[in-house]
Amino acid sequence: MNALIALDWGTTSLRAALLDAQGRVAEERSAPRGILGVPAGGFPAVFEEITAGWPRGAGTLALVSGMAGSRQGWLEAPYCPCPAGFAQVASRLAWIEPGRIAIVPGMSCESDGVPDVMRGEETQVFGAMAAMGVQGGTFVLPGTHSKWVRVSQGRIEHFQTFMTGEFYALLRQHSILSRTLPDADGEPDAPAFERGVRHALSQGSLLHTAFSVRALALFERMPPAQMPSYLSGLVIGEELRTQHRPGGTEPVCLIGSEPLVKRYRGALGILGIPTRAAPPDSTWRGLWAIASTWQPS
Amino acid sequence: MNALIALDWGTTSLRAALLDAQGRVAEERSAPRGILGVPAGGFPAVFEEITAGWPRGAGTLALVSGMAGSRQGWLEAPYCPCPAGFAQVASRLAWIEPGRIAIVPGMSCESDGVPDVMRGEETQVFGAMAAMGVQGGTFVLPGTHSKWVRVSQGRIEHFQTFMTGEFYALLRQHSILSRTLPDADGEPDAPAFERGVRHALSQGSLLHTAFSVRALALFERMPPAQMPSYLSGLVIGEELRTQHRPGGTEPVCLIGSEPLVKRYRGALGILGIPTRAAPPDSTWRGLWAIASTWQPS
Repeated sequence: MNALIALDWGTTSLRAALLDAQGRVAEERSAPRGILGVPAGGFPAVFEEITAGWPRGAGTLALVSGMAGSRQGWLEAPYCPCPAGFAQVASRLAWIEPGRIAIVPGMSCESDGVPDVMRGEETQVFGAMAAMGVQGGTFVLPGTHSKWVRVSQGRIEHFQTFMTGEFYALLRQHSILSRTLPDADGEPDAPAFERGVRHALSQGSLLHTAFSVRALALFERMPPAQMPSYLSGLVIGEELRTQHRPGGTEPVCLIGSEPLVKRYRGALGILGIPTRAAPPDSTWRGLWAIASTWQPS
Repeated sequence: MNALIALDWGTTSLRAALLDAQGRVAEERSAPRGILGVPAGGFPAVFEEITAGWPRGAGTLALVSGMAGSRQGWLEAPYCPCPAGFAQVASRLAWIEPGRIAIVPGMSCESDGVPDVMRGEETQVFGAMAAMGVQGGTFVLPGTHSKWVRVSQGRIEHFQTFMTGEFYALLRQHSILSRTLPDADGEPDAPAFERGVRHALSQGSLLHTAFSVRALALFERMPPAQMPSYLSGLVIGEELRTQHRPGGTEPVCLIGSEPLVKRYRGALGILGIPTRAAPPDSTWRGLWAIASTWQPS
């Protein structure tokens, strides 16, 4: 492989990187062209635009991860079922142009007769594994839909989605609590966040704990400015409550933006669970790792 | 007491009843004049209007329960802390006109250093107790903010709020799941509802189980028409998962509208918990019970 064109094509944004033959980032670009903003049939043109001037032809592969592989995306790439590692995912690439442009499939798993899915996070986990030289562990990707991913012997064995970020936004903007909360989130308040995490851990459901925001306000027992941090602690604590502690002192690997990683590190710390942060650009490293296992037939 | 004028004054609606000297309902009225629709200072006029022509003067008491006692209501009636029974609540009436018109206080309780509150449900529980001739048990009032109320020896010992109905509406209308769900709820689907309840009971949090609506849709493993019932099962099952089973075969008393009572009866039945439904008009019976314990000084 002479070079890899790597694309992280999500719902609302598009990022691209040119990696050289050693997998180093030569150039990065981004555009507000998530799949929701691309008209039907418009994907090839947006691809050409964001990769303009980059090498083409034999020896240069373009790999795309994320929602571009969904039904509403460029080309539907059927989910790869768990368990699966780099090689299995690489063998299921959905080719837009054979040998030249492919989409990395998302992954699916099942528990209690109910499926779960992810698209893009599998690539970040593969990238973190490659960068950190690990073959197993628990990987947490906080966000609108947080993912908890269990990896063993280089394969993603199982994962779970938590609508943590979305529930926060729903409660913040559309629920009765929005009348109690200040208009802007303001600076994070660490003690209020910790109080929220601890309350969530001590109770059975966010259905109940969320109402405490209102009750604390009625009795003026928490300043409004602290309440967004408290609510953030409630939803993140709720997510953590459901997780069995990983055995021993194995750290949980956090993959995400620095502010979110910091919050999760704090919340996991309350449970006595150590963490390590994945290096940045897990997506580029993951696409590189998948590209490296792919053998042209 | 010659007669009781009973008012159930909630956030969005107002109901009134005239009870005779034996506590029988002589006449009932209602109006869409919840406290949110009453301008500042407008409560006396709305009261006069809804009770026009009913007896006044010595021997006739008017008792108001519900959100009319909140800070945004007619007169703030401070919460009566748990544990408390009829007599304690009656001793804390907030008088608008001494001996003539009073507001029943809501109740508060505390667990893990966090308060909880209710207004109006305490009166319904008192009414159900009076009507059923019981002095204890678990009372469940399903709704936008469901209440689980524990009563012992005639006193409300503790209660918990669950934002079950509100979470359903948030997920239904404002979350990513709204894209998957049909526009209208349609007829309740009992098997889909039960599947939702069972899935919620088997998992640790609605943050995770709610996402299954989307995943089931992606794999076309549930017809869209069944999904509102499945989601309803998820949120009600989540509420139930947090409750310890009441000891023995003591039935849980359900207080609410017939459709909601039916759903909760079904969900509790999955857990093997028997139920009984409170007689209608628990509020009128509760206000009568409180009025009967009140002794003019």
